[in-house]
Amino acid sequence: MVRTIDLNSDLGESFGQWKMGNDEAILAVVSSANVACGFHAGDPAGILHTLKLAKKNQVAIGAHVSYPDLVGFGRRNMDLASHELTADVIYQIGALQGLAASVGMAVSYVKPHGALYNTIANDQRQALAVIDGILAVDPGLALVGLAGSNILRLAQEKGLKTIAEAFADRAYTAKGELVSRRETGAVLHDATFVAQRMLQLVTEGGVESIEGKFTPIQADSICVHGDSSGALEMAKQVKSILQQAGITIRSFIHF
Amino acid sequence: MVRTIDLNSDLGESFGQWKMGNDEAILAVVSSANVACGFHAGDPAGILHTLKLAKKNQVAIGAHVSYPDLVGFGRRNMDLASHELTADVIYQIGALQGLAASVGMAVSYVKPHGALYNTIANDQRQALAVIDGILAVDPGLALVGLAGSNILRLAQEKGLKTIAEAFADRAYTAKGELVSRRETGAVLHDATFVAQRMLQLVTEGGVESIEGKFTPIQADSICVHGDSSGALEMAKQVKSILQQAGITIRSFIHF
Amino acid sequence: MVRTIDLNSDLGESFGQWKMGNDEAILAVVSSANVACGFHAGDPAGILHTLKLAKKNQVAIGAHVSYPDLVGFGRRNMDLASHELTADVIYQIGALQGLAASVGMAVSYVKPHGALYNTIANDQRQALAVIDGILAVDPGLALVGLAGSNILRLAQEKGLKTIAEAFADRAYTAKGELVSRRETGAVLHDATFVAQRMLQLVTEGGVESIEGKFTPIQADSICVHGDSSGALEMAKQVKSILQQAGITIRSFIHF
Amino acid sequence: MVRTIDLNSDLGESFGQWKMGNDEAILAVVSSANVACGFHAGDPAGILHTLKLAKKNQVAIGAHVSYPDLVGFGRRNMDLASHELTADVIYQIGALQGLAASVGMAVSYVKPHGALYNTIANDQRQALAVIDGILAVDPGLALVGLAGSNILRLAQEKGLKTIAEAFADRAYTAKGELVSRRETGAVLHDATFVAQRMLQLVTEGGVESIEGKFTPIQADSICVHGDSSGALEMAKQVKSILQQAGITIRSFIHF
Repeated sequence: MVRTIDLNSDLGESFGQWKMGNDEAILAVVSSANVACGFHAGDPAGILHTLKLAKKNQVAIGAHVSYPDLVGFGRRNMDLASHELTADVIYQIGALQGLAASVGMAVSYVKPHGALYNTIANDQRQALAVIDGILAVDPGLALVGLAGSNILRLAQEKGLKTIAEAFADRAYTAKGELVSRRETGAVLHDATFVAQRMLQLVTEGGVESIEGKFTPIQADSICVHGDSSGALEMAKQVKSILQQAGITIRSFIHF
Repeated sequence: MVRTIDLNSDLGESFGQWKMGNDEAILAVVSSANVACGFHAGDPAGILHTLKLAKKNQVAIGAHVSYPDLVGFGRRNMDLASHELTADVIYQIGALQGLAASVGMAVSYVKPHGALYNTIANDQRQALAVIDGILAVDPGLALVGLAGSNILRLAQEKGLKTIAEAFADRAYTAKGELVSRRETGAVLHDATFVAQRMLQLVTEGGVESIEGKFTPIQADSICVHGDSSGALEMAKQVKSILQQAGITIRSFIHF
Repeated sequence: MVRTIDLNSDLGESFGQWKMGNDEAILAVVSSANVACGFHAGDPAGILHTLKLAKKNQVAIGAHVSYPDLVGFGRRNMDLASHELTADVIYQIGALQGLAASVGMAVSYVKPHGALYNTIANDQRQALAVIDGILAVDPGLALVGLAGSNILRLAQEKGLKTIAEAFADRAYTAKGELVSRRETGAVLHDATFVAQRMLQLVTEGGVESIEGKFTPIQADSICVHGDSSGALEMAKQVKSILQQAGITIRSFIHF
Repeated sequence: MVRTIDLNSDLGESFGQWKMGNDEAILAVVSSANVACGFHAGDPAGILHTLKLAKKNQVAIGAHVSYPDLVGFGRRNMDLASHELTADVIYQIGALQGLAASVGMAVSYVKPHGALYNTIANDQRQALAVIDGILAVDPGLALVGLAGSNILRLAQEKGLKTIAEAFADRAYTAKGELVSRRETGAVLHDATFVAQRMLQLVTEGGVESIEGKFTPIQADSICVHGDSSGALEMAKQVKSILQQAGITIRSFIHF
């Protein structure tokens, strides 16, 4: 039975004068921070501020790499050529590595963001372009991907460590895929129910699907949010119920 | 007498479909490449292409950091807060370090670009912000600055290695400062004259000023250009005359 | 005695997923909306949303033109060439005119934003570049500037209508200039005090300066804010006290 | 038989210090200029310069609207929401209208650029979003689209004037579609052959397809290029052979 699990969240998503999320509060909850790198969100000074908070909280740092689409927040599919995508990934990882080094930290993993995350779950060309970028800059970096998706297998074949991710507030199909946000019931809002569900995920290796059957999901990390008081409360309950059950919340990367 | 000198040039200044400069040709001449980092020029795929060419030519890599002003090519003064400028410098160095690492190279020095280069020669607040950024990300990086300017002394006090730079195609005042581009005679166009002048700089430690007197200039590196056939020809003549006089063209950073 | 006054506020300052201000609430208070044009804030879809709300509230539309500095929110001085600044102003006005036309409205005035607003109060070169841009695209547009500043006189000489602006929440010097934000007491926080002060401004043509003397200020419009509940409350009190005194809140531009 | 035809070309595609194309030379050849609006290319000062040249040459002005993708030059598909695309189109048209007004010209038509041009030939959702944008800002603007494509019929149904476009240097299939650039023979390089072919297009209403059969193409405008000396030469030959045959080269928009 799993006795440790990682909790991750998206951070550093402010941009200049625009504030987003509550990095300080969620950093007290999670063990891993997916930090924006400037392509969908995050300006250098704001990212640096988030990294300092992450250090204070002893949280692992991941590069939350994205398509170059600030106005669309990286949520719109873009048909980049492979060599463009590879270079964009390297550039973002490097920029975050530089900022992390300046506060005495290191980047431990890469999590593609938004439309890129969804696209590479199925698009092998773009998936390989991302994997190539990670391998080129630092083959010791792990890749975070959707639990059960092809991208994880592909990355492992290429020699990358992978971190399989589940989403605390999302419904799953019987096949173990995420229910599309366009469908009713795709997003879960009850913090207590979500917390119980994540305990089941960790202790039983799966959750009940939207069709009502148990679906196996092998996850190394659970994604939670901190961008509203409701989301933050849910994250806290997930952590609390797991810890009460004797589960250790910990990044796979050691300091 | 100086028996080695570095030749540097600005590279990686294309952006997407827009081409600028002739990186391939100038890389066969220089020993150091100041590579754009995306803030005034350079997209990740284009920068990566330039770095591969630099590697083939065994040329040292510098981060050509800039104000965030793509449309103005980093040539317009911007009044950034110190913490913004420091973070911008770190971000750019890190991004280039990542791209360099992906081709098996390392960044060896930092050269501020355009308006930032000129501003920090006199503006101590911005100078310190740049120096802080370099120290924070990697205190082993050297800083390139105008020969004789305060920024070099300031950087040395803070513990940075410095590289004093002279400009092959620029006239100097009797005080050893650059003649403003707005004045007649500020830019030199005769390749043979410039080459002779740079030989004098290296062997005698100075050049004739615009007022007609010998002006001492202690330079570790000479900046040449490759963005036109005339500029490229001038760079080649400078290199040729120096080599014929037994001067070694070499970066201060060893591979 | 003045029987009408304009109330203006900065709007349309969200960008993509980043929200800023409460446009819906403040549009119920003001008679003029300074709408961001994409250079310091505002993406096309977001601006369009604000314009629709402005139309519903019968509020006049101004182009809140800025330096091209999204990450700095237009608050950092930039040394643009005159022809660049003129073209940037025209581009932004045109873009907003297009969006306004698409909802059946028209742009009535131009208010420079942030660092540009402050710079042109004293920098004649940049002031003329802005005025040239406005004249070129539509000489019927009015220019909003700081009450008492040179820019208003200069614009009038060039044939532009001008709107002199006072700031509800700012202290003034005995010379009628704004007290710098860096000094204590520069920003006023007491809504009732500010409302009384603005009534004095309108009925007596001036306010008490920070030195304690009455300072004449001839203002056509008062700038209020809606980006916090406190600011919104202050704006409402200003409007309320003026209306109770029989002052009409109205844009100088008629529908 | 057709006695007039329009020649159009893509212009204003420089960006800041990066130069692209030879606007001055191609403006002496064409009757319509598709001018970049800042989203794939074109900064305000550069666009303004091109518009002044266009005025001198009495050439009609079209808004060359694009996805917001400067680094990709608008050549990469982007999955924008309809309301985002509509607002982006309005913004770009408005910006160009402002710049055109400032030199005493008007925008007469809209030509979607690059990936957007290709996508809306088949994607009805995005096509309608573009059409909605044009109608909202000015229903008198004509839409340029690929001759024979659905977008033209759709635009006409919505009440827009349309301009059917043929490409001088491209091969066509028997169905009247463009041969993909990925296939051999897709792009034609022989200026004399292309000129003869365009004469056939205008006088006979079609050209020989890549399969060797005559393919009817009803075109109102022919797209030529001026970004290389070869392209410029080809454009000149097309114009020359058409004029020698008594065809008038003229925009459908009258001054």
